[in-house]
Amino acid sequence: MNDIQLPSKHLELAVNEISKLPGIGKKNALRLALYILKQNEDFAKNLSESIVRLKTEIHFCKKCHTISDNDLCDICSNPMRDNSTVCVVENIKDVLLVERTNQYKGLYHVLGGVISPIEGISPMDLNITSLMERIATGEIKEVIFALPVTTEGDTTSFYLFKKLQNYPSVKISMLARGVSVGDELEYTDEATLARSLKDRVVYSVTL
Amino acid sequence: MNDIQLPSKHLELAVNEISKLPGIGKKNALRLALYILKQNEDFAKNLSESIVRLKTEIHFCKKCHTISDNDLCDICSNPMRDNSTVCVVENIKDVLLVERTNQYKGLYHVLGGVISPIEGISPMDLNITSLMERIATGEIKEVIFALPVTTEGDTTSFYLFKKLQNYPSVKISMLARGVSVGDELEYTDEATLARSLKDRVVYSVTL
Repeated sequence: MNDIQLPSKHLELAVNEISKLPGIGKKNALRLALYILKQNEDFAKNLSESIVRLKTEIHFCKKCHTISDNDLCDICSNPMRDNSTVCVVENIKDVLLVERTNQYKGLYHVLGGVISPIEGISPMDLNITSLMERIATGEIKEVIFALPVTTEGDTTSFYLFKKLQNYPSVKISMLARGVSVGDELEYTDEATLARSLKDRVVYSVTL
Repeated sequence: MNDIQLPSKHLELAVNEISKLPGIGKKNALRLALYILKQNEDFAKNLSESIVRLKTEIHFCKKCHTISDNDLCDICSNPMRDNSTVCVVENIKDVLLVERTNQYKGLYHVLGGVISPIEGISPMDLNITSLMERIATGEIKEVIFALPVTTEGDTTSFYLFKKLQNYPSVKISMLARGVSVGDELEYTDEATLARSLKDRVVYSVTL
């Protein structure tokens, strides 16, 4: 693609900008730019405005750092939620994923990343101070780590676990690791299988 | 995805607009929107401006209908190009693809689609009148059909072929169809193989 001479510098500019998005290469960016070019002017205008508004209009919840149109997000400001439980997640998307299960009625805390020496992300870059402040209020009885099952996720969980030792009354839990629902054992990797054996639970049938 | 309640109406709007792009579903649109949200404000601004400029700044060449920053595109206004040959293509992208081969020195004509009764595209919707006008000038000696190898592409080629019967001095050709370069015969479909047999060429080695 880099060797194709585009017939318009405006097209070139758009292709460059669009291809800065993750997972969109130059070829795909050209396809999208040509598609936009084919639509009416409102299409480009609406798309463009909605993108700018992402940065100008969206706020972050002061308490849990998820996105929100107000100072406090809908979850933090909902009196029906259990404010004694906090689920610690890596990013905003994880909040949406956990919400989708309809299983969780507590609050969240978005770290904004996980500790990664390789990518130069230290605990200072994450929303950890505000998490500790929330815990210091004494309101929180349980912290659930719902971080990625990677070295970085585990490092972050461990870092938080150590910090939380100052609050012995706070229960610390993490997501269970095991065989995916609907998965054959055959296709489950050994580490997961070993973990699911170690963390085996009492068999029970709810009738 | 549709069942996830997004925590911001601005995010929802952006996800909706982005997912109108071809090949980008709601899930992917959310991923892109969250990525934009993470970048600095200039990122969103530059992307957004480049999209609007696509519609406001880009012109179409008056002669061949490809995109151009001027009235005549760089190809049509290049005196080194052979203006007696016209390559008829479906869309702008095809111009870029043929240009990339570095094999073609003639001009182009972008139809803006192919005849498709199913999608309601009739010859009237395509840039056919302007093609006939170019041929009526008597400047053009050869027309090359470089249309897709589909029923719609073949229908369009046949339609143009009939129209061009009024100009017996104009040579009409089409792209050769056959086995892809680098392909095993094993993976070539029968229709292509049959066609490449029928259109077989004299074996020659250029030393």
